[in-house]
Amino acid sequence: MCDVCGCHERVHSHSHQTRTVDVNQSLLKANEEAAINNRKHFDDLGMLAINIISSPGSGKTTLLEKSIDVLKDEISIGVLEGDIETDLDAERIRAKGIPAVQLTTGGACHLDSSLIHKGFHSLEHQLNGKKLDVLFIENVGNLVCPSFFDLGEHVRVVLISVPEGHDKPVKYPKAIMTSQLLIISKSDLVPYFDFNIDKIKKDASALNPSLKIIVTSTKTGEGMEEWIDYLKVNLKQK
Amino acid sequence: MCDVCGCHERVHSHSHQTRTVDVNQSLLKANEEAAINNRKHFDDLGMLAINIISSPGSGKTTLLEKSIDVLKDEISIGVLEGDIETDLDAERIRAKGIPAVQLTTGGACHLDSSLIHKGFHSLEHQLNGKKLDVLFIENVGNLVCPSFFDLGEHVRVVLISVPEGHDKPVKYPKAIMTSQLLIISKSDLVPYFDFNIDKIKKDASALNPSLKIIVTSTKTGEGMEEWIDYLKVNLKQK
Repeated sequence: MCDVCGCHERVHSHSHQTRTVDVNQSLLKANEEAAINNRKHFDDLGMLAINIISSPGSGKTTLLEKSIDVLKDEISIGVLEGDIETDLDAERIRAKGIPAVQLTTGGACHLDSSLIHKGFHSLEHQLNGKKLDVLFIENVGNLVCPSFFDLGEHVRVVLISVPEGHDKPVKYPKAIMTSQLLIISKSDLVPYFDFNIDKIKKDASALNPSLKIIVTSTKTGEGMEEWIDYLKVNLKQK
Repeated sequence: MCDVCGCHERVHSHSHQTRTVDVNQSLLKANEEAAINNRKHFDDLGMLAINIISSPGSGKTTLLEKSIDVLKDEISIGVLEGDIETDLDAERIRAKGIPAVQLTTGGACHLDSSLIHKGFHSLEHQLNGKKLDVLFIENVGNLVCPSFFDLGEHVRVVLISVPEGHDKPVKYPKAIMTSQLLIISKSDLVPYFDFNIDKIKKDASALNPSLKIIVTSTKTGEGMEEWIDYLKVNLKQK
């Protein structure tokens, strides 16, 4: 465990490693306990919680906006928006008529279960007793650190957009290994990039054989029906 | 200071905050001391060190490849390649005939000065006494955590690519505030995105008034001459 970034059990070159390992293990343990509480809370409410992670600009908020357009007359949706600074993304979601709470981490590179717990109670205040079917959690834009923090979600979705390149699964394996669904976003841009869809699928599946993969474009609509169906199947299991 | 991600002095919601703050301050202090040593080492060698940070897939390695094509007959270049896993990027650089050392962090989300120190000595073994003019350090793909770690570089360059969106400076201010140069990459893709170059320039300059900004495309060549000139001006000051 690195005592500054806290991201991994493998040793790297920070000093004072042994001095802080117990503290960080207790922190991740505290996060895990809070995650279990969150998940129990969501289960008690019969609600599906989805944690969406990706690099900055991969299209998390746009995917949410498009999904809301399709689903908002059928199901009840709430959103927790993670960002380091600004509440631009929560404003985009609220503009769709969907309750959203912005969680700004003040510099930190990921959400944690304690923030989700507080954020969800803020969201409940906006609901006036209405029950949610789905809670979307949009994590901070970062393909590394959020992979290490269970938020109590039922499904973790990782987005990789075509402009980022097909080599991302092998370079950022933890995000792939801890997710249930990989969404390859911005597929409309494939003609402009040297992006090999077969290769990214193969590499991702090698890291996580049970990973579902959907190729999408919010511009052309490719894969959107499959993504919505995926959500509905998971929703039925709640 | 967050004791898991270590990224910021502002409080966020992890537990045990007070228990670890001293440890993390000592870690960042240890990094800072190692950074000062690295910089002194680079100064003694009369070498310019450049730390390049960005999200995954913003085009750091491609920018390096193109810069090497232009500069390799004029100046002596070495590269330290940061990645979480794989040595794909160092292989791309070596294919250009340039000495490169891959630093894999084993899960950690950023390079630190101690890794740079070790990596630079490995690089020196490849040089057989040859002097370097420029050392490029390509950081781990992450727009958050690398901003907090001085590596001993003389110039920090942050890349933001057009597909990521023009809202990235306000959402990831630390990377902007600690850099000397912002490269807006993949400008050839502006026609396909709602990307406002004036807005990103204005937002970035508001955060860091002394920031230089260059709009580039390695496909059309836009801005590449300005970037090479920027390097040469900084090189002359060594």
